[in-house]
Amino acid sequence: MAGIKNFSLPIRIYFEDTDSGGIVYHANYLKFMERARTEWLRSIQIDQRLLKQKEHVMFVVHRMDIQYKLPARFNDELLVKTELVEIGSSKIVFKQMIYRHDEMLIDAVVNIACIDSEKFKPVRVPKTIKHTMESL
Amino acid sequence: MAGIKNFSLPIRIYFEDTDSGGIVYHANYLKFMERARTEWLRSIQIDQRLLKQKEHVMFVVHRMDIQYKLPARFNDELLVKTELVEIGSSKIVFKQMIYRHDEMLIDAVVNIACIDSEKFKPVRVPKTIKHTMESL
Amino acid sequence: MAGIKNFSLPIRIYFEDTDSGGIVYHANYLKFMERARTEWLRSIQIDQRLLKQKEHVMFVVHRMDIQYKLPARFNDELLVKTELVEIGSSKIVFKQMIYRHDEMLIDAVVNIACIDSEKFKPVRVPKTIKHTMESL
Amino acid sequence: MAGIKNFSLPIRIYFEDTDSGGIVYHANYLKFMERARTEWLRSIQIDQRLLKQKEHVMFVVHRMDIQYKLPARFNDELLVKTELVEIGSSKIVFKQMIYRHDEMLIDAVVNIACIDSEKFKPVRVPKTIKHTMESL
Repeated sequence: MAGIKNFSLPIRIYFEDTDSGGIVYHANYLKFMERARTEWLRSIQIDQRLLKQKEHVMFVVHRMDIQYKLPARFNDELLVKTELVEIGSSKIVFKQMIYRHDEMLIDAVVNIACIDSEKFKPVRVPKTIKHTMESL
Repeated sequence: MAGIKNFSLPIRIYFEDTDSGGIVYHANYLKFMERARTEWLRSIQIDQRLLKQKEHVMFVVHRMDIQYKLPARFNDELLVKTELVEIGSSKIVFKQMIYRHDEMLIDAVVNIACIDSEKFKPVRVPKTIKHTMESL
Repeated sequence: MAGIKNFSLPIRIYFEDTDSGGIVYHANYLKFMERARTEWLRSIQIDQRLLKQKEHVMFVVHRMDIQYKLPARFNDELLVKTELVEIGSSKIVFKQMIYRHDEMLIDAVVNIACIDSEKFKPVRVPKTIKHTMESL
Repeated sequence: MAGIKNFSLPIRIYFEDTDSGGIVYHANYLKFMERARTEWLRSIQIDQRLLKQKEHVMFVVHRMDIQYKLPARFNDELLVKTELVEIGSSKIVFKQMIYRHDEMLIDAVVNIACIDSEKFKPVRVPKTIKHTMESL
């Protein structure tokens, strides 16, 4: 789980994640993918609290294309695989897939925008962040 | 639903509220009770955004004693009954009950603290707020 | 809000919906869109509980392409607009948009699959459901 | 973290857990405490899926008295401490506390009922489960 372009985060499914259909509620996979992006940022020493306080920027989801291939259930142990695909001037693109052993449950492309944390307008990814990501 | 000491808010149960046990996930009733307190504040013309921006105070849950008597399920229509019990110098106490028709599902006593929105320390309930609540 | 191909559901934003970035957490818009699809089904007299119990089918999200255009905040009142785009043999496609007055915040295309509620495999949309939807 | 009467589970705070007040949304601590009870059960080899399928019982929260002492924030790493206090014929009582280093944030007493998973009525805790817990 070092700071690399491919990153894996294990996730355990609890009751809070499921719904009365007996499977994981579809919106909750987005939470798992965000936990993975947060841990990936942490793994490359990017602290989102400092980013907001000092640089006044936040990363937010701008677009997501997500395919639900198979459902997860209570007690399942999943693996969220995160791959950095592209770094633009004000956006970052990830491919994220969620697996249960060798079965792919979720396949998503996630566009992240860098925004001003007060005005909520797109801004450039801070240089040091961009360099850190490009050098992975 | 006027600005009175007793206030009722209808809540519909969606898939997001349930878990794989087939019933509403226990933490979600706390959300329903907060929606009801928020709507009660709105009904007596208290705007929590202005309260934070201008008076730098927030209301937060300080203690809750909650009894789960019967479970709710997908598609149920519930009624959250909220009763103002006590207004102290820096706290407000509510009794909140959740009903499905004449069955009581939830019975709770909720202690709300008034805190400074930056330092997160207890402060006095602003006078105008206290007066508004006492005059109900 | 009658049983038509275009359906609007108002949504109020509570604290539960927001995150510490000061805006609505991105996964929560998926909940709002599902509430709207559920209310749309209810408006055309389709009861998802009976559907599961009697026909052993459930509707689940199969794919979603969602664009986040502007953020919503605490206390906002939004409108979820839902439009039935296509009814296939085992899938239904919706266009869903979320507005705050005349600003579009969310623009999504949602593919719903009809699945067996025990085996979680795709099955045909029950005829009566399909006819009801096609006759709107 | 072996199968003992005192059990600790680390929890990381993500954006999903916070609200626009800048702190963890109060209902979410209940999720953290349930994750801890689930992991405690797992640590003593009790599988809640089998419990439901074979014994037709579920554990549900029956009553909770929770004190919110200090707020947690984004990125905090917390520790949920869970202590088995009492095993009755159809209920189990836990004391659960949430810490950030040496600061206690949450102090709760949680009453769990054992119920029939179809009728949602209280039933006796299965003997093998009771013995396992009493022998810790």
